[in-house]
Amino acid sequence: MASAAPLHPVARQALLAALDEGWADPARLYHEGRRARLLLDASRETAADAVGCRPDELVFTPSGTRALHDGVAGAMAGRRRTGRHVVVSAVEHSAVLHAADAYDSTAVGVDRAGRVAPADVTAALRPDTALVCLQSANHEVGTVQPVAEVAELCRTAGVPLLVDAAQSLAWGRVDGGWSLLAGSAHKWGGPPGVGLLAVRKGTRFAPRHPADERESGRSPGFENLPAIVAAAASLRAVREEAAREAARLSALVDLIRTRVPEVVPDVEVVGHGTLRLPHLVTFSCLYVDGEALLTALDRAGFSVSSGSSCTSSTLTPSHVLKAMGVLSEGNVRVSLPPGTAEADVARFLDVLPPLVAEVRSHLGPPPAVTPAPGAGLVVDSLGKLCPIPVIELAKVIGDVPVGGTVTVLSDDEAAALDIPAWCSMRAQDYLGATPAAPGTAYLVRRRT
Amino acid sequence: MASAAPLHPVARQALLAALDEGWADPARLYHEGRRARLLLDASRETAADAVGCRPDELVFTPSGTRALHDGVAGAMAGRRRTGRHVVVSAVEHSAVLHAADAYDSTAVGVDRAGRVAPADVTAALRPDTALVCLQSANHEVGTVQPVAEVAELCRTAGVPLLVDAAQSLAWGRVDGGWSLLAGSAHKWGGPPGVGLLAVRKGTRFAPRHPADERESGRSPGFENLPAIVAAAASLRAVREEAAREAARLSALVDLIRTRVPEVVPDVEVVGHGTLRLPHLVTFSCLYVDGEALLTALDRAGFSVSSGSSCTSSTLTPSHVLKAMGVLSEGNVRVSLPPGTAEADVARFLDVLPPLVAEVRSHLGPPPAVTPAPGAGLVVDSLGKLCPIPVIELAKVIGDVPVGGTVTVLSDDEAAALDIPAWCSMRAQDYLGATPAAPGTAYLVRRRT
Repeated sequence: MASAAPLHPVARQALLAALDEGWADPARLYHEGRRARLLLDASRETAADAVGCRPDELVFTPSGTRALHDGVAGAMAGRRRTGRHVVVSAVEHSAVLHAADAYDSTAVGVDRAGRVAPADVTAALRPDTALVCLQSANHEVGTVQPVAEVAELCRTAGVPLLVDAAQSLAWGRVDGGWSLLAGSAHKWGGPPGVGLLAVRKGTRFAPRHPADERESGRSPGFENLPAIVAAAASLRAVREEAAREAARLSALVDLIRTRVPEVVPDVEVVGHGTLRLPHLVTFSCLYVDGEALLTALDRAGFSVSSGSSCTSSTLTPSHVLKAMGVLSEGNVRVSLPPGTAEADVARFLDVLPPLVAEVRSHLGPPPAVTPAPGAGLVVDSLGKLCPIPVIELAKVIGDVPVGGTVTVLSDDEAAALDIPAWCSMRAQDYLGATPAAPGTAYLVRRRT
Repeated sequence: MASAAPLHPVARQALLAALDEGWADPARLYHEGRRARLLLDASRETAADAVGCRPDELVFTPSGTRALHDGVAGAMAGRRRTGRHVVVSAVEHSAVLHAADAYDSTAVGVDRAGRVAPADVTAALRPDTALVCLQSANHEVGTVQPVAEVAELCRTAGVPLLVDAAQSLAWGRVDGGWSLLAGSAHKWGGPPGVGLLAVRKGTRFAPRHPADERESGRSPGFENLPAIVAAAASLRAVREEAAREAARLSALVDLIRTRVPEVVPDVEVVGHGTLRLPHLVTFSCLYVDGEALLTALDRAGFSVSSGSSCTSSTLTPSHVLKAMGVLSEGNVRVSLPPGTAEADVARFLDVLPPLVAEVRSHLGPPPAVTPAPGAGLVVDSLGKLCPIPVIELAKVIGDVPVGGTVTVLSDDEAAALDIPAWCSMRAQDYLGATPAAPGTAYLVRRRT
């Protein structure tokens, strides 16, 4: 259960064969060079078939991130006469958001399931919009986006659509009239070091690199041929198993989505229940230090990820969870690699409840509670990180009468997300936030 | 005998081990992520030791080309207040020249051996010079550049020096006070898909990519960990064998440099005789179609490269040979991979003379010779590619008296290089070129 898929056996075989067979530079004339060129051409045809484009529309890049960076930059430069405005969804991968930062960008919001509304994309279009970027499916919560509908409205508006298909290429083609599409081999069981960028004919595109004759001038540098061959071979192999494996993993994800809230109290399963990737599921646990839970799961043999601020080096919660307005506290992301056994999932569901209980038992000391002037209490959580502010709020809410208020002072960015989410889960009234010095004051009224 | 070194056995072992062991994302918290981080850190230390810098000064990139592109762009952006002028040698790799094209660039010439004179670099410096780029050794002719001297003059002038060390890193560190250094793993027997960029502390550097937390923000994208591990392991391995292997291969190169002109008539060995890489040797053969010779050598089992216009898809001769002013006709570049046996070189020296003779026997039809008004002949070689114009010149030079002239009309760019080079080799007087319509008229006076 990891965020990058393990290397597919076919990728491993192809990598070894290509290391032995196709070593030389495809641009060279001599014998090995010709063989390398044949391997590169065959890989391009395989990948193009899987993507649903022509081989001459597809180039290999050194990573999915570089494919996205180069795709955004090339598309924006190709339409620089139109303008410098780019529309992105608020839940795109950071590679897209960072690439868009170089331009005038508008982020379209999502609903609580993480889904973009096509009408919101239409509303964000301007006369100077040069590009729209939308992922095929979200990398943290698995929600599938309405790409075909957005592609159609983009076509009508005459604006190209770039699709980050990294999460979904293993499962199938991206339908609809997209203009550019990016993917990453290590997401489909291929090796790292390979991304792909498709630019459909008729799409204006101006590469931003220094000149280079390789990959149609769209991706400079010596081609990583063994990895490209392995990437293409594994994409074909995973596609052959995709329909059956998707159905099987999806049932296991359904099991997790149903069972986790039954066996663990105070859990929110996030992301869309049906319009989702087959293999990905994410939930958040109240009163849990995400890093402590990840470490405990790791010791039990489960590698999971988290969008909690407490597990990130930047100490900010995931921008995806933030845009969805869902709890980030104790966030756990489970990605089932192909072949995951039902027994592994059953064992995960067995170990999770005691581990969460264990982590919750290490709650901090009682909060410093101050009777506020008037009818409320003030909890000073300044300097304390997620999940402490919510834990302290939960501890004192019973100390005020129904109708009374608790003010939580916090300087942790996650509190802005987690305190309203807690109120919603616990049926308390969240009255809003006001700047304090230092930090922010979050006002909650006891309802029950 | 190829331009990319074959994969070193240590690289292959390390690649396989890393594929099995260190798969996951080094940025993740969980168990496999921690192991991946350890492997990445150890590889960085190994590479930094081989380069001669601190580990935190070195990042891995997806290729040597990207390291050069990113190095030039980052160094120029870091010193944009100084100006947009960059000094390069005329014989840099095309990746450097193309990267420099985005700025105001001055190319410093080289001597007939391909070597830069430090005084010429000093003369090219301006108040707005932000960067100097110099290769450690040339990729086509093997000539070693005076990097330490140029680094010292750059230090005095307060301008950073970027060294393209791709050709020499297998053999040792680059001496001297360079500021930035780039390399490419597949040149030292590592896998493709890995380059490195070192930026010494105190060097102003502003990455030009969209923001990305990986590799100190200097190289975005998921790290290609298996290839990085293999690259570092093979660099250490080739260095352990470097001194002995350099001496052995250098003796074989000396044999080729001495014997080829003895066994093949009308050959020019190019590049410096002693200030050179141990494994690389280049020569040019008059009256030879380079592509035909490469194909013949390929059939005989020898993979070589060429800087002739007749073997390149762009139909222009190598910019390196052009800058050196040496013959590009029938150019052959031989790169001896580590472990090359003396017997292989002996066999090469055996097969080369009959193959050159065979290719030369397919000379074109007699030229269309026109008695020119006055004392000379005019040869119309318009529309004919290298080596035909020189062959036609050689055929008719005996038809004019000593002191008489031959005018060659040619529209092949290689003629500008090859006709003067032929005159120099054949002790004839080259009187210069004048524009004709179409093409160029090259005037030669018979001396002997």
